[in-house]
Amino acid sequence: MKLLLKEIRHNPLLWLLVFVPVVFAAEQLKPESHTLLFVLSVLAIVPLAALLSHATESVAAKTGDAVGGLLNATLGNLTELVIAIAALRAGQYMLVKASIAGAIVTNTLFMLGASFLLGGLKFRLQEFNRVGARMQAALLFLATVALLIPSAVSNADAAASAAFTRSLSLGLAVLLILTYGLSMLFSLKTHRELFAGAEGGEEGETPWPIVLALATLAAVTVLVALVSEVFVESVQKAAESLGMTPAFVGFIVVALVGAAAEMASAFSAARKNRLDLSVGIAMGSASQIALFVAPVLVLLSYVIGPAPMDLQFWPGAVVMMLIATIAASMVTNSGRSAWFGGVLLLMVYAIFAMTLYLLPPQAS
Amino acid sequence: MKLLLKEIRHNPLLWLLVFVPVVFAAEQLKPESHTLLFVLSVLAIVPLAALLSHATESVAAKTGDAVGGLLNATLGNLTELVIAIAALRAGQYMLVKASIAGAIVTNTLFMLGASFLLGGLKFRLQEFNRVGARMQAALLFLATVALLIPSAVSNADAAASAAFTRSLSLGLAVLLILTYGLSMLFSLKTHRELFAGAEGGEEGETPWPIVLALATLAAVTVLVALVSEVFVESVQKAAESLGMTPAFVGFIVVALVGAAAEMASAFSAARKNRLDLSVGIAMGSASQIALFVAPVLVLLSYVIGPAPMDLQFWPGAVVMMLIATIAASMVTNSGRSAWFGGVLLLMVYAIFAMTLYLLPPQAS
Amino acid sequence: MKLLLKEIRHNPLLWLLVFVPVVFAAEQLKPESHTLLFVLSVLAIVPLAALLSHATESVAAKTGDAVGGLLNATLGNLTELVIAIAALRAGQYMLVKASIAGAIVTNTLFMLGASFLLGGLKFRLQEFNRVGARMQAALLFLATVALLIPSAVSNADAAASAAFTRSLSLGLAVLLILTYGLSMLFSLKTHRELFAGAEGGEEGETPWPIVLALATLAAVTVLVALVSEVFVESVQKAAESLGMTPAFVGFIVVALVGAAAEMASAFSAARKNRLDLSVGIAMGSASQIALFVAPVLVLLSYVIGPAPMDLQFWPGAVVMMLIATIAASMVTNSGRSAWFGGVLLLMVYAIFAMTLYLLPPQAS
Repeated sequence: MKLLLKEIRHNPLLWLLVFVPVVFAAEQLKPESHTLLFVLSVLAIVPLAALLSHATESVAAKTGDAVGGLLNATLGNLTELVIAIAALRAGQYMLVKASIAGAIVTNTLFMLGASFLLGGLKFRLQEFNRVGARMQAALLFLATVALLIPSAVSNADAAASAAFTRSLSLGLAVLLILTYGLSMLFSLKTHRELFAGAEGGEEGETPWPIVLALATLAAVTVLVALVSEVFVESVQKAAESLGMTPAFVGFIVVALVGAAAEMASAFSAARKNRLDLSVGIAMGSASQIALFVAPVLVLLSYVIGPAPMDLQFWPGAVVMMLIATIAASMVTNSGRSAWFGGVLLLMVYAIFAMTLYLLPPQAS
Repeated sequence: MKLLLKEIRHNPLLWLLVFVPVVFAAEQLKPESHTLLFVLSVLAIVPLAALLSHATESVAAKTGDAVGGLLNATLGNLTELVIAIAALRAGQYMLVKASIAGAIVTNTLFMLGASFLLGGLKFRLQEFNRVGARMQAALLFLATVALLIPSAVSNADAAASAAFTRSLSLGLAVLLILTYGLSMLFSLKTHRELFAGAEGGEEGETPWPIVLALATLAAVTVLVALVSEVFVESVQKAAESLGMTPAFVGFIVVALVGAAAEMASAFSAARKNRLDLSVGIAMGSASQIALFVAPVLVLLSYVIGPAPMDLQFWPGAVVMMLIATIAASMVTNSGRSAWFGGVLLLMVYAIFAMTLYLLPPQAS
Repeated sequence: MKLLLKEIRHNPLLWLLVFVPVVFAAEQLKPESHTLLFVLSVLAIVPLAALLSHATESVAAKTGDAVGGLLNATLGNLTELVIAIAALRAGQYMLVKASIAGAIVTNTLFMLGASFLLGGLKFRLQEFNRVGARMQAALLFLATVALLIPSAVSNADAAASAAFTRSLSLGLAVLLILTYGLSMLFSLKTHRELFAGAEGGEEGETPWPIVLALATLAAVTVLVALVSEVFVESVQKAAESLGMTPAFVGFIVVALVGAAAEMASAFSAARKNRLDLSVGIAMGSASQIALFVAPVLVLLSYVIGPAPMDLQFWPGAVVMMLIATIAASMVTNSGRSAWFGGVLLLMVYAIFAMTLYLLPPQAS
């Protein structure tokens, strides 16, 4: 408990934890102020995500490499998963899909681009292990293919057969999880020395004792789940009154909120010339969402959703994921980076954000 | 003749030759059992393709490098060509196109992927000459562009002008064959030392005497042509009764049957750590089908088909060819391979196969 | 003046200057002979473009590296800009857009491909600095994304909101110019040593004195503007009577005319084994048109056009730009070239040209 308080004192991000009780109070007192609830829930999720991330890493550090890697790989995007589950239970499938696509695009373009830019402003040229980046790019490409092919083959004229899309989505979900599992076997077990440097973990921070870490993990997950429900309920109406399109909210706002904690880690690593770590966090998180979180949500929708969710995404979202994958692959291909590579990725992100912001609501 | 019998005794694949007379007998006795005829003709084509492939190589080995390379390059996909001609004469243009696209996708994803996986399970890291792989990938990209651009520029709303598509296809066919010829001039003549290792040829097998090779070539081609006619006639109805979509049959089944002999060679080379050879067979065969077999069929359709065939493919097939080219290019780009690269290619193939298997018939 | 005459005497291309007065005379005497005016204006623009290019380089050489680089980067495509402004003032937005897309495609495929082929016929293998080529390819990719995303996200069914497209185009134009500015800061200032060789400038030619260069720049720009007006007025009707589709004229003819001078430089450098220079001219010119000329035209359309111009291109043009970017990126990726790389690029260009030539007019 003392360690937890010490952590909170040293990390200004965690001061935002004060908004957690505030959001619950506001929900009781002013259930109709959607914009207020939306802003408060965003402010509450960010520090909870940071705590969750630290707790996961502490558990992983204690359990040894193999189990730890597995834990990090499955719980690393717990915040995104919990928010998506809240949206899934509310039947808001559009929001779930927009947040999945948005998280992939935000991680590969904004998080990676800003890491390159921040690192590049301090260091002239930075090097990183490109084997890891290439593998993550290949995994993202595979996931994009899985999301692209159902729309590409089904005739635009014919009424898309719901049964076809549903059974195909189920099969694709299983293939993606299987590939994700094999990728971990490859990078953590059979060929782990190829990825040296890309893993690493954050030294300098002392991991918490296992009991504290597990207790935090459990308690904070519950809190994130509760706040996410307020967030999901308020987000659409708040967006309207703030003049934002639903596409912009799902793609950009939710994705930035969900990934705030990881961004803090990736940017700080880039400023310390540990670009391996930044690339690993950004690309690894994107491929984890694409190959693990998204298919798990499809499977979960059969259990907890009002109806099965499929993997048929809005075509614009698929195009954005494909472009993000290609852009990240081009920029990371050489294993060296300078500030301009970051500018390029951020510009692609700015093009997407501007398009979604201006998009008339009925078009999405 | 003794050599031929010795070959048959040592190669269990060739025992399937017994199905060649069986399929002709069955056609006379049970002309209505489409499923039986389909299965028997598949079983008969596989060993014939293996014989054809060996005979071509023997002729090539005897005639010296330049003529031999040319022979291998033009007759290497003789089985696919003969099957496609049978379909062409029957006016089954959908089947011809599906089998062309399927052969390209199957060679670049399944044959290459399984070679990487089989080789990678035995050897930790395998190296190969990436110059050859890059050139084949570039040729495939060019062919995909040729198939993509007619649909991309013609307005979806306007009734696609048949005259436009037909004259464009004729021009594209000539360009593709010309490019294929220049690629051989480049890789076999002016810059052949860049491709060292990628060529090679299968040592260890003694080539047949030229007379035996030529006689086998002629006789087996006739047999393949006869069996192909049974195959083409039975395949659609057999597919229906086996519950397979026509798209799945053309793309997956016909492609696997046509390439069975080359697969045996590619996989065996991968297990002997001769990945140069595997990559050369898989990628070379794909680019040969795209730049030589497909345009030759367009030209032939003016002579033997009921009507000229164009190069306008089903959009889903073009997307799959494009994805297969990009995937193969990503995985072969580094010149090194491990088992996971094979898994990635096989997973893309599995996504395609699953999609085509589930696709409602009217949508293709 | 003596220097100018000497230049004219030594450069046969400049003998075409005689057509400048001829075109003005013809316009007065035969204002209805569109085909004649079209041919004469083409013949007059080519030598003017060569003079303009030489004058720009001379001014750049005199003003030192930083300002000179900036001048070259902004005035390098002055001919294209002046022609496009003439079309803009005439309200011919289709022609403006076709010529922008055509210039990008012609520079990356025809100019680069012919340089590789001409150089490769003389030298077995040529090397060039691939850092520059990669950066230009990345810039082109960014520009293509900017042109692709508006069509990709707006629903085909919904009437595309003109207001959306217009404000998005304005925002994209600003982003592209900003990125172009940052790319110059990167390649000319902060990381210029990475691009060593790619810059260079044409040695061997003595630059003109600054007064002559500035006077030529001013006078020739006015002449190009005047001839461009004749060109723009006559091109559509001339195309009809020559049996060429408008798409072919805008994409191929205008682009070849506008880039004639740069092509002469790029080809001559390739024949002198200075491929760095050829690649720099071809790719640099393409990215300059995409990231500087095109957005400047959008901004200018608010001032001088009959109505604001947007950045929504014909989908076929976007696909061609995307393919050209990928093809150039594949071929330049290794930093080495042989003749066959040039053949590949030229074949892609031939596919585009043939498609546009055959395209029925109503489909474009």
